[in-house]
Amino acid sequence: MSLSNLIQKNNIKHLASALGLFGAGFCFHKMVQPKPTVLPWIEKGTESDINPSKLKFIKTKNPKKKSKPEDLVFGATYTDHMLEIDWVRNSGFSVPRIVPFHDFVMPPGCCTIHYALTCFEGLKAYRDKNNDIRLFRPDRNVDRLLGSTKRLSLPGFNKEALLEAMMRYVDIERSWVPNKRGYSLYLRPTVFGTEATLGVKEPSSMKIFVIASPVGPYYKHGFKAVRLLAEDKYCRAWEGGTGNFKLGSNYGPTILPQKLAHDPKIFGGCDQVLWLYGPKKEVTEVGTMNLFGFWINENQEKELITAPLTDGTILPGITRDSILNIAREWGEFKVTERTWTMEELLKAQQEKRILEVFGSGTAAIVSPVKEIVYQDQLYEIPRNPSDPKAEMGPITKRLLDRIQSIQYGEVQHPWSQVVKKY
Amino acid sequence: MSLSNLIQKNNIKHLASALGLFGAGFCFHKMVQPKPTVLPWIEKGTESDINPSKLKFIKTKNPKKKSKPEDLVFGATYTDHMLEIDWVRNSGFSVPRIVPFHDFVMPPGCCTIHYALTCFEGLKAYRDKNNDIRLFRPDRNVDRLLGSTKRLSLPGFNKEALLEAMMRYVDIERSWVPNKRGYSLYLRPTVFGTEATLGVKEPSSMKIFVIASPVGPYYKHGFKAVRLLAEDKYCRAWEGGTGNFKLGSNYGPTILPQKLAHDPKIFGGCDQVLWLYGPKKEVTEVGTMNLFGFWINENQEKELITAPLTDGTILPGITRDSILNIAREWGEFKVTERTWTMEELLKAQQEKRILEVFGSGTAAIVSPVKEIVYQDQLYEIPRNPSDPKAEMGPITKRLLDRIQSIQYGEVQHPWSQVVKKY
Repeated sequence: MSLSNLIQKNNIKHLASALGLFGAGFCFHKMVQPKPTVLPWIEKGTESDINPSKLKFIKTKNPKKKSKPEDLVFGATYTDHMLEIDWVRNSGFSVPRIVPFHDFVMPPGCCTIHYALTCFEGLKAYRDKNNDIRLFRPDRNVDRLLGSTKRLSLPGFNKEALLEAMMRYVDIERSWVPNKRGYSLYLRPTVFGTEATLGVKEPSSMKIFVIASPVGPYYKHGFKAVRLLAEDKYCRAWEGGTGNFKLGSNYGPTILPQKLAHDPKIFGGCDQVLWLYGPKKEVTEVGTMNLFGFWINENQEKELITAPLTDGTILPGITRDSILNIAREWGEFKVTERTWTMEELLKAQQEKRILEVFGSGTAAIVSPVKEIVYQDQLYEIPRNPSDPKAEMGPITKRLLDRIQSIQYGEVQHPWSQVVKKY
Repeated sequence: MSLSNLIQKNNIKHLASALGLFGAGFCFHKMVQPKPTVLPWIEKGTESDINPSKLKFIKTKNPKKKSKPEDLVFGATYTDHMLEIDWVRNSGFSVPRIVPFHDFVMPPGCCTIHYALTCFEGLKAYRDKNNDIRLFRPDRNVDRLLGSTKRLSLPGFNKEALLEAMMRYVDIERSWVPNKRGYSLYLRPTVFGTEATLGVKEPSSMKIFVIASPVGPYYKHGFKAVRLLAEDKYCRAWEGGTGNFKLGSNYGPTILPQKLAHDPKIFGGCDQVLWLYGPKKEVTEVGTMNLFGFWINENQEKELITAPLTDGTILPGITRDSILNIAREWGEFKVTERTWTMEELLKAQQEKRILEVFGSGTAAIVSPVKEIVYQDQLYEIPRNPSDPKAEMGPITKRLLDRIQSIQYGEVQHPWSQVVKKY
């Protein structure tokens, strides 16, 4: 009888004590037996929705040693605890639980291993000068997560309730938020189907979990402009697909094209893929980021341009939305969301109308572009005419500074939310 | 410190004894401590490729009770053992191991939970009249699995070696192959990335595993013709995508459209989705099967038609290939792989040139189509003019019978391979 069967047969109590061995605190080196911790694979509950008021907290008995900020590798170090909420059809949601960081005891027939029934979010917690912890537009992440969850045919949930549970989690992990500008605590909310079945169908159970990883700046030695490979063989997303949701299934297939782009034969290797779409070679996204062009358009107007959210091929990035908002607030140049093509981009490059090009995302905030390789040709992208050595153009830099100053609470802004001390 | 970290630190021995608690044999009811079984999450090995000659077998101490064939639910009951092979970069492949069926101890940062780095196969083992166990074209499944694995940027492996390890596994599980025509043992080879990292990159470790589930006929009360919803809002696959590989990421996104097709408001509900592609509404696949039309074409020729494998949007089905081969061998009508559109299909339906339409796949072999709903219209599809009550047309039936007679070894054919008694 498998462990998952046992869970279904309600041997939760026995299971829990066995699972205690897997608590984050258990040290195999010394073979010291810890006190059992309740860490079931699925905790069956009867709540009709996420209920943060009933949140349960089991504190780790063996807090981890924190690394020096400089040694952090993106997404490889995790904090002491994780947040978990389970849902089982005909039963309901479990109470949210913050428990020691632990492995899952996942049956090999779990639908997520077979059919990729998984979606996620990425957002960061920042420490401000008053030692308060701040989140940047977390409501938008929870909102998008709900959309992704439903796209997977998984049930909806109360967004405010999940956000409150996440806030409580960040509150508990606040000592893990690095005290240095450029550093933050990366949060990874994830939702996935947990039913053990090979039938291709709506899962009858799911898990919502959040793990956290302290991270340094995306580029260790300052922001470095990247070289893109404009890719027209592989395609990231398409109309009628899922490119506008943050599903796990959008990411796995991009790894091979990304790896091929690094090939030194392509002008010594490219850093990221610029995803083109359709016969018109529409400019869509770069790597796992949205893409912006700042140019003099055909009407001789200064314009910030990015692909629109209309056809379902573009991820509605929160940094993307923030940049559009900030630029519109400045009101200094035209801000446009419309389909633009590789032909337009290259024409502008040849006519010296490109001012700056950059990618935007949670990880790097902005990622300046220095070159684009397309059909065996390398095209240079200007950054800063007054400083040829600059990695980043002036508009890119201003946007980065503005967003960071909001994220670190250096300016008052409704996008930045202080995490309460519960 | 998490379990996965411990594994990386080579505490395999200690881990193994702890993991013994999770052996399939452990009965929580009685709380009897079993002898430890080695069931690590990742077994680090030094083999340069899969090496079936070193296969390790740990027999379950608690064999499961087998259900009555009639009670089987697709993919919900598993046999006593599973096959596992791990790969770790800079180290190599583990020896293949056949171990008691058990859950995985998966870290929450595992790349497959976040980025869907997973692919799989489905094939069946059949019991013939001599009580021998047979596989149907298993080399094709292993071949396709290798292609899918590489598409995920995971390393290649020796196909013959994996096939031999699978044969040994089926040999061990032979008592699980039902002794009844229409019944079989469904095998699910799966490959997924096991690295615990949130970086979107090539995983440094992977697991190959095979589980097996005894299954009954796909349709309990005989083959039943299905109603399809021709879907032009959601799109399964696209050029430059991964539709021609068997990746988990192709399946999760199809579940919501499939669920919506069941809506009773659509003429009482449809059974499956017929995936259309592009502005021309090309006829591609149905549900998780390939689709065939048998018709009188515009040149008044009898023709079996299916979408071609040329643009990467069609899964190269093994049943599809078998049907094409059998029909070509018969030589009684034209057999064509080419793009065909909804317009052509509906024109033929209106001109009464459609003879039969059916889906093909491992699960159902063939799935006759009785109706297609498209843009709020219901179109009837003929099956058997001489028997209006027949669920299946004569060509569909002949193909089904021919394939089954090969699968169950009733006729000699190179596609059917007897599993050796090792």
